[in-house]
Amino acid sequence: MSIQKPKGTQDLLPGEIEKWQYVENKARELCRRFNYKEIRTPVFESTELFQRGVGETTDIVEKEMYTFVDKGDRSMSLRPEGTAGVVRSYVENKLYGEPDVTKLYYIGPMFRYEQPQAGRYRQFHQFGIEAFGAVDPGIDAEVIALGYTFYKELGLKDVVVEINSVGTPSVRASYREHIQRFFAPVKDQLCKDCQSRYDRNPMRILDCKIDQKFCEGAPTITEHLDEECTVHFQAVQDYLTAMEIPYRLNPRLVRGLDYYTHTAFEYKAGGIGAIDTIGGGGRYNGLVGQIAGGNNDKPGVGLGLGMERILLVLAAQGVEIPAAKPLDVYLIGLGEAADKECVRLLQQVRLAGLSGEKDYLSRKMKAQMKSADRQAAAFVAILGDDELARGEISVKSMLTGEQETLPLSGFVQTLADRIRNV
Amino acid sequence: MSIQKPKGTQDLLPGEIEKWQYVENKARELCRRFNYKEIRTPVFESTELFQRGVGETTDIVEKEMYTFVDKGDRSMSLRPEGTAGVVRSYVENKLYGEPDVTKLYYIGPMFRYEQPQAGRYRQFHQFGIEAFGAVDPGIDAEVIALGYTFYKELGLKDVVVEINSVGTPSVRASYREHIQRFFAPVKDQLCKDCQSRYDRNPMRILDCKIDQKFCEGAPTITEHLDEECTVHFQAVQDYLTAMEIPYRLNPRLVRGLDYYTHTAFEYKAGGIGAIDTIGGGGRYNGLVGQIAGGNNDKPGVGLGLGMERILLVLAAQGVEIPAAKPLDVYLIGLGEAADKECVRLLQQVRLAGLSGEKDYLSRKMKAQMKSADRQAAAFVAILGDDELARGEISVKSMLTGEQETLPLSGFVQTLADRIRNV
Repeated sequence: MSIQKPKGTQDLLPGEIEKWQYVENKARELCRRFNYKEIRTPVFESTELFQRGVGETTDIVEKEMYTFVDKGDRSMSLRPEGTAGVVRSYVENKLYGEPDVTKLYYIGPMFRYEQPQAGRYRQFHQFGIEAFGAVDPGIDAEVIALGYTFYKELGLKDVVVEINSVGTPSVRASYREHIQRFFAPVKDQLCKDCQSRYDRNPMRILDCKIDQKFCEGAPTITEHLDEECTVHFQAVQDYLTAMEIPYRLNPRLVRGLDYYTHTAFEYKAGGIGAIDTIGGGGRYNGLVGQIAGGNNDKPGVGLGLGMERILLVLAAQGVEIPAAKPLDVYLIGLGEAADKECVRLLQQVRLAGLSGEKDYLSRKMKAQMKSADRQAAAFVAILGDDELARGEISVKSMLTGEQETLPLSGFVQTLADRIRNV
Repeated sequence: MSIQKPKGTQDLLPGEIEKWQYVENKARELCRRFNYKEIRTPVFESTELFQRGVGETTDIVEKEMYTFVDKGDRSMSLRPEGTAGVVRSYVENKLYGEPDVTKLYYIGPMFRYEQPQAGRYRQFHQFGIEAFGAVDPGIDAEVIALGYTFYKELGLKDVVVEINSVGTPSVRASYREHIQRFFAPVKDQLCKDCQSRYDRNPMRILDCKIDQKFCEGAPTITEHLDEECTVHFQAVQDYLTAMEIPYRLNPRLVRGLDYYTHTAFEYKAGGIGAIDTIGGGGRYNGLVGQIAGGNNDKPGVGLGLGMERILLVLAAQGVEIPAAKPLDVYLIGLGEAADKECVRLLQQVRLAGLSGEKDYLSRKMKAQMKSADRQAAAFVAILGDDELARGEISVKSMLTGEQETLPLSGFVQTLADRIRNV
């Protein structure tokens, strides 16, 4: 019996992996331009980190984590998201001591035990950024701009930013009462989840797909923002306008996580049906202190974008991804001595910076030509024992069909020059 | 109380991460030239895969795996090495149906619960390649050449390849008897591990650091190879010579894993003390069939190189790693209107493909200049409210100290041209 991959996970194979590489290279390139540096934190962390950083009463921590006890009897969990580990690392490595804003990005696997469905996997992948140390609304706008620019440059169409201010904890506490008062008359008619949300986190009722019929006319947080929140939120909008980032206000946007303060945002894309959110983020003043466990809070703002979701939208919108570079040359040796010489030549080809291939299956010339074709080789070089004796090699351009005989010595250099000039 | 990273794991932070990026980019670039394509398999797999693919009686599977039961009651393990998952994926996705040799590479985290020490972590990282479908010794040589070229191009000094043939299973069965006969008189004096190895895998006694005193004069497998093995091994050596890869024979080299057949090899580097092995691999005809669980064997050959080990050697040998690109421009806005204009300009800078930064901490001009310095900005552009009113901006080259005033319109394009010509 052969063994299968774990349910809800993927193998990323040649043919598909090139798309991932393309999207990741774009993310890295954009982070260079926006001056975010990469950070890599462990794939698993102590379970307590996520209880503190994601929230003990969230679905993620309550139901979806891969938690295990290690051989040293510590409770560990595969990370269900990227921010908690980055915050832990920021605190542990005292990056808050740096004089500049700490701007970090990560790309990597995350893990949640959920029911697999289109675009949702138990091992999934996120690209995220975090900026620590600044309360300036300009950095909220920068984070939003990076995500928007990323989608645009990938070629995604109809991307819109939705933004909201979820206020400060004190604003939210007072808004919470207004919301509870609003839903009180219909509390018993809400869905089971929302009945529990009513006490724990009533703002999330506004997000519920089932209970939208009860949300009409609900008070919005925007009406209840204090002056500090209003000024911050207005500045973010002004910056987005200056940067020509199209956005719309969505007073219902609360995001799944409880730690957001002030700015919360999501990106929506057209053409993929109901689940149109392709990424999001927000400001999280207070989270660093919560994870550090002391009074050492530092403000932060970040975003997280799902790689699987992006690839789904790219495919749904029919966006072309630039083809990978073709193979430069396929070497064919006819005869034992010539085949051995091809092994030597192939290493020379590769040392010269070109990509090269040869046959390792003792195939006839015709089958080798087919193999060269399948691999989209730009040139095929054919060496027979006779040619080897004369110190020559035949080179055929697969693009023009042109064929010529070159001296064997210097052949690699000639080929390299020709490929660089194509 | 603040939370720490799990014992034996690392945070890779800016300042260090650039070295990782450099080494990984080299690996990817070399795989392009050698025509290996990336594959990504899940970080965890069913425990049974590693029992079959790594071996139930190996230290790795017996003692070092992170094994847990998932919420669906399946035994899963974080992957302790890369080959088993790639082989599983090769079988499950029927890549053996492809007409060409299947050439794959992977880079990613692996996990073993071991005692942490210099260069050894519980989450570590490997770059590996696997070539399936060919028995040709030319592909053994290609795999060895890729690893050697990788180290050389990274700038590692004194890298030597050690090779051996560990024969076929039938050759090894007969050699095993010779070895047991040789050690029988001293069996009781061997270390505890080797007393157990005597029955289970006596070849590994030759590898034991403690029992080297008993190994003098032990029969070598080379003396017991049959003709098929000898021809294959000689051909690998001839190819390495043709490719100018320096190697030495090490008849004691058996590698830790039991699945190797024919070629086994290791890379050694100078200047890092006792543990001088920096990578290795071999041929594993039979492993695909073992994991597939049927008669569908396909030959394979591969290598695995430890990233942490490479970085350790690069540091020990004092190899310089090319510096990351500096920041192109730091924008300084003096006054509220100018600062806001800088947010707009900064987005323009980044859309033009340049890297840019500004202040988000309301710092004075002098502190902003220092920040630009710390970030090695090539240019600083200064915009005051007066200049903004006149439609101008001051630009200073941090390299030459030269300062000039440019029209604000077209400033980004002028800067881009200048940076491209530096």
